[in-house]
Order: sequence, then structure tokens, then C-alpha cells
Amino acid sequence: MLRVGLIGAGRIGQVHARNIVANPRSSLAAVSDVVETAATALAGSYGAVSRTTQDILADSAIDAVLIASSTDTHADLIESASAAGKAVLCEKPIDLDLQRARKCLTATTTVGRPVMIGFNRRFDRNFSELKASFDAGEIGKGELLSITSFDPAPPPGGYIKVSGGLFRDMAIHDFDMACWIFGAVPEKVTATGSSIVDPEIGKLGDIDTAVAILHFAGGRMAVVKNSRRAVYGYDQRIELLGSEGLLSAGNILENTITKASAAGIVSAKPEYFFLERYAGAYEVEWSSFVDAVLNGNSVPVTVQDGVNALAVAEAASLSLKNGQSVAVPEAAPGVVS
Amino acid sequence: MLRVGLIGAGRIGQVHARNIVANPRSSLAAVSDVVETAATALAGSYGAVSRTTQDILADSAIDAVLIASSTDTHADLIESASAAGKAVLCEKPIDLDLQRARKCLTATTTVGRPVMIGFNRRFDRNFSELKASFDAGEIGKGELLSITSFDPAPPPGGYIKVSGGLFRDMAIHDFDMACWIFGAVPEKVTATGSSIVDPEIGKLGDIDTAVAILHFAGGRMAVVKNSRRAVYGYDQRIELLGSEGLLSAGNILENTITKASAAGIVSAKPEYFFLERYAGAYEVEWSSFVDAVLNGNSVPVTVQDGVNALAVAEAASLSLKNGQSVAVPEAAPGVVS
Amino acid sequence: MLRVGLIGAGRIGQVHARNIVANPRSSLAAVSDVVETAATALAGSYGAVSRTTQDILADSAIDAVLIASSTDTHADLIESASAAGKAVLCEKPIDLDLQRARKCLTATTTVGRPVMIGFNRRFDRNFSELKASFDAGEIGKGELLSITSFDPAPPPGGYIKVSGGLFRDMAIHDFDMACWIFGAVPEKVTATGSSIVDPEIGKLGDIDTAVAILHFAGGRMAVVKNSRRAVYGYDQRIELLGSEGLLSAGNILENTITKASAAGIVSAKPEYFFLERYAGAYEVEWSSFVDAVLNGNSVPVTVQDGVNALAVAEAASLSLKNGQSVAVPEAAPGVVS
Amino acid sequence: MLRVGLIGAGRIGQVHARNIVANPRSSLAAVSDVVETAATALAGSYGAVSRTTQDILADSAIDAVLIASSTDTHADLIESASAAGKAVLCEKPIDLDLQRARKCLTATTTVGRPVMIGFNRRFDRNFSELKASFDAGEIGKGELLSITSFDPAPPPGGYIKVSGGLFRDMAIHDFDMACWIFGAVPEKVTATGSSIVDPEIGKLGDIDTAVAILHFAGGRMAVVKNSRRAVYGYDQRIELLGSEGLLSAGNILENTITKASAAGIVSAKPEYFFLERYAGAYEVEWSSFVDAVLNGNSVPVTVQDGVNALAVAEAASLSLKNGQSVAVPEAAPGVVS
Repeated sequence: MLRVGLIGAGRIGQVHARNIVANPRSSLAAVSDVVETAATALAGSYGAVSRTTQDILADSAIDAVLIASSTDTHADLIESASAAGKAVLCEKPIDLDLQRARKCLTATTTVGRPVMIGFNRRFDRNFSELKASFDAGEIGKGELLSITSFDPAPPPGGYIKVSGGLFRDMAIHDFDMACWIFGAVPEKVTATGSSIVDPEIGKLGDIDTAVAILHFAGGRMAVVKNSRRAVYGYDQRIELLGSEGLLSAGNILENTITKASAAGIVSAKPEYFFLERYAGAYEVEWSSFVDAVLNGNSVPVTVQDGVNALAVAEAASLSLKNGQSVAVPEAAPGVVS
Repeated sequence: MLRVGLIGAGRIGQVHARNIVANPRSSLAAVSDVVETAATALAGSYGAVSRTTQDILADSAIDAVLIASSTDTHADLIESASAAGKAVLCEKPIDLDLQRARKCLTATTTVGRPVMIGFNRRFDRNFSELKASFDAGEIGKGELLSITSFDPAPPPGGYIKVSGGLFRDMAIHDFDMACWIFGAVPEKVTATGSSIVDPEIGKLGDIDTAVAILHFAGGRMAVVKNSRRAVYGYDQRIELLGSEGLLSAGNILENTITKASAAGIVSAKPEYFFLERYAGAYEVEWSSFVDAVLNGNSVPVTVQDGVNALAVAEAASLSLKNGQSVAVPEAAPGVVS
Repeated sequence: MLRVGLIGAGRIGQVHARNIVANPRSSLAAVSDVVETAATALAGSYGAVSRTTQDILADSAIDAVLIASSTDTHADLIESASAAGKAVLCEKPIDLDLQRARKCLTATTTVGRPVMIGFNRRFDRNFSELKASFDAGEIGKGELLSITSFDPAPPPGGYIKVSGGLFRDMAIHDFDMACWIFGAVPEKVTATGSSIVDPEIGKLGDIDTAVAILHFAGGRMAVVKNSRRAVYGYDQRIELLGSEGLLSAGNILENTITKASAAGIVSAKPEYFFLERYAGAYEVEWSSFVDAVLNGNSVPVTVQDGVNALAVAEAASLSLKNGQSVAVPEAAPGVVS
Repeated sequence: MLRVGLIGAGRIGQVHARNIVANPRSSLAAVSDVVETAATALAGSYGAVSRTTQDILADSAIDAVLIASSTDTHADLIESASAAGKAVLCEKPIDLDLQRARKCLTATTTVGRPVMIGFNRRFDRNFSELKASFDAGEIGKGELLSITSFDPAPPPGGYIKVSGGLFRDMAIHDFDMACWIFGAVPEKVTATGSSIVDPEIGKLGDIDTAVAILHFAGGRMAVVKNSRRAVYGYDQRIELLGSEGLLSAGNILENTITKASAAGIVSAKPEYFFLERYAGAYEVEWSSFVDAVLNGNSVPVTVQDGVNALAVAEAASLSLKNGQSVAVPEAAPGVVS
């Protein structure tokens, strides 16, 4: 039984709390949050207690911490929790700055405790089935990967300002998916984009619509398409063309109802956003972490993976700016979990 | 917070335990089972204790009981738990004998505590969306309802013997769906069937393939198709033709992957059986019960509903035998929740 | 090259004219119609001439006739054209009266010329693929066949009066499909129905919504569902459950477009009615006839098939009336092409 | 009635012959081919005669010619047929050389006779429905267009050698679609590609897998993905993301059958290649041409459109070579039919 301290009682912290409690191999010991009442309320719903983050890290009765606080606290908390001997599951990203993330990698590697980065999509049962089919050779050699990743609505300007830009904030998930599926970091990136969805985003120097092409060894390519707005909901699809076929992962719809009328056939929209679409993925992510820690196995998503995706995002940002393909230094090690 | 005693620690009891624990408005206090080690193991996973059913019913700190024990204990437990002042959620059916079920209805009506019957399908988000669309008038007046309900594989002969026959055991769910959707009990039933899937079932005097037509007031009809075997998985679909359109609820597939190869386009099968297909429905069922009890509202599925479905099943069994349409006495009250 | 005389220049005659002309193995020699201007116009579009039916039958330069005139002329024209030595393709039905149809069978059997009945659905590439998969054993032994067959809108009362009733006019196509797929004529029929779509139809003594169950040897069943109104278009689907799987033939949609918007995902409706849905089937039907005649093979749909379907329709009409299952005398020979 | 001379009796000429004959407003007068026996056989099937191309152009009883001969003859035949006063429908492309195509544009503009280029995909009912929905404002402002265009199998090396390269030979269709849908020629093109399907193609200096990004005015983008091999068949899909939704055009499948078995749910593959997939499009293309000519309207695809698509292909070829975005001179006029 893994006794867990949860850092962060916001909407994603609440998702994790439920999964910790419902998993028969883990229990929720304590919750902390910068807003203490939030921590108290969440802890109370599940018979746990509210404590400070410091207390949680200092308590030897707590085996693991789940970091669901704001992005700017991630790298520090990963390092201090790891140093305190806890197993760590941290929401993505490690940091918006590639150098800081690399430092975190070095620090956690030295400590040697399990640290897992929450790239939730790897645990979506559709994407993991696609990956498993591909790895099993069902479509032969991989040639052309296509990732469609559209948000339902653009975030407010305040969010954009601290986001690190579309590639670091949003496409980073897709870059991780591409690395994960091909089992490699791309050699170079060609990225294009424009601001046509929301003029405010353009004024802030960011883009809201983008197409990035990742070039992998051996001529394999991945096309990542992003938009900050798909009014019909969160559009999350993957297609992989191989020498012997095509694997496609479709959206999860809100229900399976179709209504046929004189106006046409209407079916449900995709799940609205990540909390709905990846509800099941968060559950699997948590049980994968619990199983890895309790069984002494390596975690399925490493800090190196977090660094890799950030390095691709940085290359994409540069390519967009200078209009040329940009090399990715992390391509060399090629270590992808 | 609803403090719950769970009676029955088998596979369906385990599903309910998880939902009780994960719901922020309920907690699992105790578990009982005829196999004590099963109760102890399940309780232990969630920080609850193992007790006898008698102790649970006698404990005033327990607000509600969830009955997930074998069918032959249902009616007695509903009555005793209800008499002990507990709110009750009982797995279907009330009983295999219509007279016994009617007696249970009388007894619980007298006591007046909330008693809900676990017709899980009403809480499947596809079927509840279909019902909501229909009730909102989106396809006009209902005319012809079609329910496809196939199990993945026939049960063993031992199960068939105590099942009450295909109509009471399996189709009863579909009969409840038809009553629920049309908001009425059918006036008469025309049922046909044969044993072509498994000769052993035929030898036991039961059928494994059936078509029942329910005749509702005003000429509306419902066709229920059942088979004990669909090798591709649990096939659970509903179609409702109305004056202004058709509503269809499809299966939930194991994933959204399609693989296109020289052999064709392959997609995933339906969820294998009820534990997988109705996992979400059990969760909603539980939270509907919790909300009704804590908020003092009436429960969404009543003992009367349980009696209605059984009455339709009895009429179907008779129609199959005598080759003629058979009237349903419960049609008169017409009370469907 | 088959030289063809076309009898009937209405909308279905026009479909056939185009197929005769476009087929490189047949040519359109002449067209007749009770409305001479219609015959002249149609013939003119394709470089053919307008003539009387008598002239066409008497002309030895004409090898085959296609009968697309009104139902009440079919049996007589089949017999006279056949007697004149022509190969015949006649639109369904042979006649509305079973005795008349049986006489036509005897007459044409004596003459021995090729006579094919236009059960167009057998040539729909979806249904023929379903049949081929089933015959190849892909789903094992057939158990439960389901046919959904809804028209887009009820016909006018004038049509209903001369139609012979829903079973003879509309369901006859589905009865033929069931016989064709199972390769047998059902032993008995249980039919139910009501008039809930259009009160005028009820006043004329007919039904507009029906469910018929066909009982085949060995316990196999077929459920045929009919409605005179599906406002979203012509709904023509077949499902066949077998011991090793399920074959389903879906509708052909007007196009493959989906539009995702805040209102949901909208896709196209089924092809509106038989002229659109079965456009391809009519083309294949014609080329099957041409190939059979020119190659000296037997035709794929015989007069016996036309008699069989009518016999099932008659049994269904009787079952609806007397509330009991009705035996089908044609089941004995069991000759289905 | 349009009297037509067909130049070219190969497989695509045979498709056109059938459509000319089946259309009630056109008739097939004569067929020519470099292989005279091919012309004679095709003409014979439809009651037409075999003649030389010169005879056809010289015959004043022939109103229009359809050019379905080899690519290197197109520009000359367009000019000579046009000069001879014929209305012309010519298969794409005008020529592989952009300068030659521009000269043909000038020449035919001077003559002023109707000349239509056979970009068949514009007449596919799925794509034309997508275009119509978009033009009707159903998804608001267009933002990101995605075209998937994969051939079933790579052509032989001999074909590759004379093809002009993937962009001029294959992607040119997709470039025309993008121009047509956005009603504009892109300002610049960023193209990438590799040879990973067939090493022989790489040795010939061509690519077999490509991603091209077309940049339109106002920040709109189109992504064109091409592969010379999709073993499951011809993959032809379009998606258009707009400010108010997403329009998607799916593949046309060989049939609507699904087979559910223990191995999964199998459905049919896309139509194998262009002759099957665009059979309906060729028919509509022809009737559009006939209607335009007989009614004195302008043709729906002009020689300018042929030049535009070729100009985009040339820019893509250059971008692939030099690794930078390349401007398209034709963007200025912006005249797209």
C-alpha cells in the first residue's frame, strides 16, 4: 500500500485524489495547497488530512508525492521531494526553461529515486493500443505520423503570457507522443505557424495555429497540427502510416448516440477537454506509477522524456522564427522511455 | 456523507466498493460476505472492516446498505434492511418469482424507506442520453423501439438451471429498458425463441435465442432480440424510431483504434461483458442513489419497476409456451419511474 | 450484343434505359409505353425508336424485353414475351395474387425461356457481399437475421389501395432477402403491425408499422421491421448473427462529409429512396441478366423466387389478422435461387 | 445533343466513353487511338466508329473532343482542337513544363473556345459537398486545411522517370484542391519529403513520401500529405478547420459491410484506386462539361487552374531541394475557378 501526499488541490489535484483513493494499492495520507481551505476540503472528502508541503516531505510515513501545483514550482519540488526520499509523480512540464529541466535531470539522476513525468496521453488506452500495435509490427515499418491536437477554446491572454508559447505549452504533449511512438528524438524540426484564431494571441507574440514537421532518422516524418480553437471540442487524433498499413486513433465521443432526422445524422462531440478526455488516462497513469514503485520497476515516463519534449519545443520555436529547419541536440542520446 | 455497508464481496461487490470509496459523498464502513475472507480482503483494500450482515443491519452508524449477494437472498434482505431503517440499493432482480416480488413491493411500501433496484443500464450514459433526447421530443412521437442484447458467451448449465430462464434472467433488463423509455408497461407480449446456440440449454428446457415483441398502448411496439452468444463481445444497442427521426445508441468499443491493412479495416470489439461495458453506469448508479438519499429525493428505480419487468418476463415465458400473445396485468397501473 | 425492347418509360424505365445503353454488351432497340410521348422522348435520348409493345414482341431482331410497366400487366407480359421467345427481365412483383403468380410460374417453366424477376436488392453490393461472406462460412452457422426496411415517407392513399398491403407491397423485398440469405423458404410466419404513422392508411385497412418473424428450419429466425416513414431517408440495413460473428450491412450515405460544430457532429443522411440507394444495384442487376442470357447460364432470380416471397407475404397478412403463426406451403420445395 | 470525338481508348478513355454514351445530352461519334484496334473495339461497343485524330478534328459534325491520350500530347491537342473550333475536355495535366502550360493558356485564351481541364476530384460528391458547405459559411472562416492523398502502390520506375516527380505528378491534384477550396493560389510553399517506401524511387532522384505546407494570404495554411503506398487502398481525405467547426470528407469504402468476430470488427477498405474511387466524379465531370458547353456557360475548371496547380508543384519541388519556403508567382492574379 503506497501512502501518498498530494501537493496541489486544484482541478487536476482533485482528479488525482480520486484515483489515489479508488486504487486498492494506494491511500491518500495528506493534501497541501497554497490555498489551505482547498486542501482541507479535498482531504476531508476522502478521510485524509491537510498539511503543509514541508510537513509532507518531512513525514517518513509518506512514501510518495504527487506534484499537481503550478508549473513554476515543478523543478524545485521534484528535486526536494526526491532528495527527501519520496517517489515522485509530477505533472508536465518539468520547467519552461530547457537548461533548468536539464539541471533537474542531473539532480534526480544522482539521487536515484523514482521520478515520473505526467505525460498523461501515453496512458490513454487508444494511444497505448496504437503504440502496442505498432511495436508488435502490425503495420510494418513506420513512415509518416500525423498528430491532430486542437484545444476547444483559446486560453485567456494572462495564460498565454506565462505559457512559454504554443510549442512549449501545448505541442509539447504531441512532441512527446511522436518521440514515444517512434522511440526516438527527431533530428530536426521544421515549424510554421500563424495567429488567425485570436488577435490577442498574435499581439502577445504567440501563434495559435501551427504545423510542425519532425524529421526522424531514416527519413521518417511526423506532422503535428495544432490549433487553439476547435469549437466542437478537444480534437486529439493520431494516424501512423507504415509499410503494411495505417493505424488511427480517433476521438472519444461524449456518447454513442446518433440522431437521424430530416436535418442529417447527428452524433456526439468529442469529450470537451483534457479532464474529460483523459479521465481514464489519469487513472491508468496513477496505477502505472503505483505498480512501478511498489514492484520496484522503472517508471514508464522519465525526466529524460520531459527534457526531450522540451528540446523539440525549443527547436520548433526557433524554426518558426528563422524560417529554417532546426537541429535537436537531444537527438544524439536517443533515449526515449 | 453516506456511511455504507456492503453485502456481498464478489466481482460486482468489488465494483460497488470502488465506487462507494471514490465518491466524495459516501464512505465504505463495512463489508459482509458468506465467504468471510472475501469480505476481509475487500474491506482491507479500502480501510473498511469485515462484519456479519446482521451486525451491519443492527449498526445505527450505517446509513445505507448495498445488496450484492446472490439472487435468492435479495427479497429477504431488502425487507430486513428496510425494516432496520437503512436506505437500500439492491442488485436486480428482486426475486425470480413474481408473487414474492409483489410481496416485497407491499412490504417496502409500508416501511417507506428508500429502496432502489439496480437496473444498471438506465445509468449508462448512452441510454440515458437516448432517453433524454426522446423525452425532449427530438424525434417526435415514439413508434418502434428495437433492443439488441446479446451476451458474449452462454453461461454454464448450472447457471441456466437457477436462472429462471432467458426472459427472467437476461431479457428482464431489456424489458425494463423498454418500459423506462416508453414510460409504460406493455399491454401484451408476443414471444418466440429457440435453442440453437448451445444444445445443453435446450435440454434444460430453456432457449438461447429469442425475439419478443412488446405491444404498448397506441400501437407502439418494442422488439427485443436476445442471444446467449455473440463471439465478438457484449452487444448492447438500442434504436428508437419516431415520427421525426431515429435515435440509436451504439456499443462502447474497447478503444477507438482502427487498423487499415491489405486485409481490411479492423476496429476494436465492444466491451466484453457487463462489468466492462457498464463500469461507468455503475458509478452513475451509485452517485444517483447517494444524491437521492442525501437530498431526500425519490430514488430513480423503484421496487415497482422491478415488479413490472418481472411481470413482462413472465408474460413472455408464457407466450413462448402457448404460441399466443399474453397480456401483462401490471399494464394497468402503468407506474414506471 | 443483346438487343433490348423496353416496356415502360417511367422513372424506373429511365433507369433501366441508361443501364442498357451504358452496358457494352447490350443495346436499346425500342421503347414502348402507354403514354407514347414518354416512350418517344426516352428512346430519342439514346438513339432508339418508340414502338408498340406488340411490335416489340413480334420483332425477331429483339432478343430480350425489360418489363417496367405497371404491376397489373406483369404476369401477362411475362407470359406473352416468354412465349414470343424473348428473354425477360420483369420488375417485381409477378402479381399481387399468389394463384396468378403460381400460374405464371407453370407457364414460363413450360416455355423454358430465361425469365428473371427484378429483386433489385440482391444486386446491391453491400447485401451481395454480406451473402458471399456468409456463404463462405465467415460467421459460421446463421442464427438470427434482422432486416430493417423503412421507407422515407408514406405513399398516398391511392397507392395504398392498389398495393396489396404492406406485406405484399413493401415487405416482399425483405422476405425475398431473408429467403435468399438463408437459402430457404420459412416454415411459418408470425406477424404483428399497427397503423401509427398515417391514420389514412389505418382507415384503408392497412398497417404502416410492422414486425414479422420468419421461422426457418432448425430454429433459425429472421426479424423483419418495416415502417412507411423514416424522415431521415430510406433505411435499408441487414444484420446476421452467426455462431462465429455478426455481419452487418449499413446504409449508403449521400456523402462521406461530417461537419463538427458546437452543435455536434453532423453526417449525411442515407440515400433518399430506392432510385438513389439502388442505382448501383440496378446496373449490376442488368449486367447479371445480360451475362446470364448471352452466356446461356440460368438467371440469378427466378419466377419461383417471386412466388416464394409472395407466399411469405400472404402468410404474414394472415398471421396479422388471426394473431397466430401461419405456415408457408412453399417451404416444402425449398427451392431458392 | 453534343456529338463527341474521343481521343484515347485506354482505361481512362473507356471510362469516358461510357459516360458520354450514358448521358442523354451527348453521343459518342468517333474514337481515335495510337493503337487502332483499341479504338475500333471501344467504338464498336457503343455503335461509334474508329477514326484518326486528324479526321475527328476536321469533322464539323463533331462538336467536342475529349483528350484522354498521353500527357506529352495534351498541350498540342488542346491547341489544335481548340483552333479547330471544338469544345475541349482534357485530362490533367496540361503539360509537365510550366512554360509550355502558360503558352497553352495564352493560345486558348486567344481562340476563346471552351477548354476544361479534368481535375476529376472537384466533381467527387464528397469534396464538392465540403466545398459547398464551406462556401455557405457553415464553419466560418477557413484556417487549416489538411489533405491526405496516398496511392495504393508505387508505380514502376519507368513511370517515375517521365512523371515530373511526386509534386508535379501526384500532389498536383491536391494542390488544385487546396487552391479550389480556398479560392486562391498560395503565396509560398514549404515542402519536405523523403524516399522510404521504394529505394528505386530514391535512386531516380524522386521522393515517395512528402509533406507540403501551402501558405495562403491571411495566415491560412494547407498541409498536403502524400505517400506512394498505402497498402489498404487509395486514401483520399480532406479536413478543413474553420472558426466555427471542422468539415471532413472521408474515403468511399468498397461496401458498408462490417464483420464482427472474435478477431475484431472488420470493415471494407477504401476503393482501390482512382478509377474506382472517382467513377462517380468522372460522370459528374462529363455532365458538367456537357451542360456548360450546351448552355453556353463557362467551364468549371479552366486552363488557368491547370497552370496554377503546376506553379505550386514547381515551387514545392524547389522548396524540397533548397530547404526553404518558395514563393508562387501565380499567387498575384489569384484567379481560381
